[in-house]
Amino acid sequence: MLIAKVIGTTVATIKDQKLEGRKLLICREADETGKATGKPYVAVDTVDAGVGDLVLTAHGSSGRQTYLTKDAPVDAVIMAVIDSLQVDGEVVFRKS
Amino acid sequence: MLIAKVIGTTVATIKDQKLEGRKLLICREADETGKATGKPYVAVDTVDAGVGDLVLTAHGSSGRQTYLTKDAPVDAVIMAVIDSLQVDGEVVFRKS
Amino acid sequence: MLIAKVIGTTVATIKDQKLEGRKLLICREADETGKATGKPYVAVDTVDAGVGDLVLTAHGSSGRQTYLTKDAPVDAVIMAVIDSLQVDGEVVFRKS
Amino acid sequence: MLIAKVIGTTVATIKDQKLEGRKLLICREADETGKATGKPYVAVDTVDAGVGDLVLTAHGSSGRQTYLTKDAPVDAVIMAVIDSLQVDGEVVFRKS
Amino acid sequence: MLIAKVIGTTVATIKDQKLEGRKLLICREADETGKATGKPYVAVDTVDAGVGDLVLTAHGSSGRQTYLTKDAPVDAVIMAVIDSLQVDGEVVFRKS
Repeated sequence: MLIAKVIGTTVATIKDQKLEGRKLLICREADETGKATGKPYVAVDTVDAGVGDLVLTAHGSSGRQTYLTKDAPVDAVIMAVIDSLQVDGEVVFRKS
Repeated sequence: MLIAKVIGTTVATIKDQKLEGRKLLICREADETGKATGKPYVAVDTVDAGVGDLVLTAHGSSGRQTYLTKDAPVDAVIMAVIDSLQVDGEVVFRKS
Repeated sequence: MLIAKVIGTTVATIKDQKLEGRKLLICREADETGKATGKPYVAVDTVDAGVGDLVLTAHGSSGRQTYLTKDAPVDAVIMAVIDSLQVDGEVVFRKS
Repeated sequence: MLIAKVIGTTVATIKDQKLEGRKLLICREADETGKATGKPYVAVDTVDAGVGDLVLTAHGSSGRQTYLTKDAPVDAVIMAVIDSLQVDGEVVFRKS
Repeated sequence: MLIAKVIGTTVATIKDQKLEGRKLLICREADETGKATGKPYVAVDTVDAGVGDLVLTAHGSSGRQTYLTKDAPVDAVIMAVIDSLQVDGEVVFRKS
């Protein structure tokens, strides 16, 4: 999974019907301290995440292993909200 | 999913029969403001997208989860047309 | 799918039995004008492509969605020969 | 599979229910001598790995081929702890 | 598939039981002339390859389409040993 920061939202009226009612959040890949430095991508939210949250995203067919994304043309899903990250014994991120 | 701009079209007479009648659009990866700065790739259109549209594309086996691409040798599909993108509370893209 | 140029051929006597009789072509990723500038990889040909052709390749499990690659340890397949590419209303590549 | 060093841990209270009880470790891609120089990502531990261990991780749908990750929205799994690496006939890493 | 050079071996006592008895070889991505210039990764050998061989590797779910890797948490497999590579009509690699 990737550590990612939720940075925005997407509105799309014309879309595959299996995406109806799904929340499409813009994420940016983050490093192991939670700093968003990587590429942006869009993931379906399944854990009520919001802009500013640090999350985990699962990709590829693994993105379809949730109730909300089953059999949908979806290749990225937010499946966890990160509370804290600890690297080499030190807390480097804690959700505020 | 990737945010992408549709930049062109592909014509291919000789192709796998499951691609017959499919629209093959050239997309270029875009950033979170809709600016096309990344790599080009070809995706099957399933939402009547056109050149100039900002779209979402799903990849890998997720690209086969639509009626038009089921069981086809297709690894990228346009499954949404983006109306607007909002980043950090600000609208950064709106379809004209 | 990736736009790719077929640049060569591979000979491999010792191989998985499901690859017997398959044509393994060396491809190089190309940009949206057909210029081969990217990384090389090997794909199974399913459309009688030849060296010099500009083709489309499908990757991952999508590479196994053809009669010739079904259930084989194959992750890239040539599934179309490109006749022409049009970008922003202009023909940028035409098969000679 | 990727050679990776386990560098930390992730705590996430809100997560997909199939992740309940799973250990989410932060890994960093390593080179063939075990030096962690690449990108960080999070993988589910299935072999009782710990911070500092050099491990192998499997990705994509292959990350779901373990008892602990079956059908879960998980795209990376630690499936081996590396004892030693030998390159060109020389031992370049040995677990201490 | 990727062209890769086998550069080493991996020993891992603690591993998923489906990996018991499997040979885990360190590969390095090579270019179309067989020169190993890319990233290292570990693949399961299914064709009795050895260090120094130039091989083809299949990735993702395609890495599980062999008798030795079926249903295993394995995302890369060596499925061919390359005898020769020909680019633009010229032999650029021949197994010695």
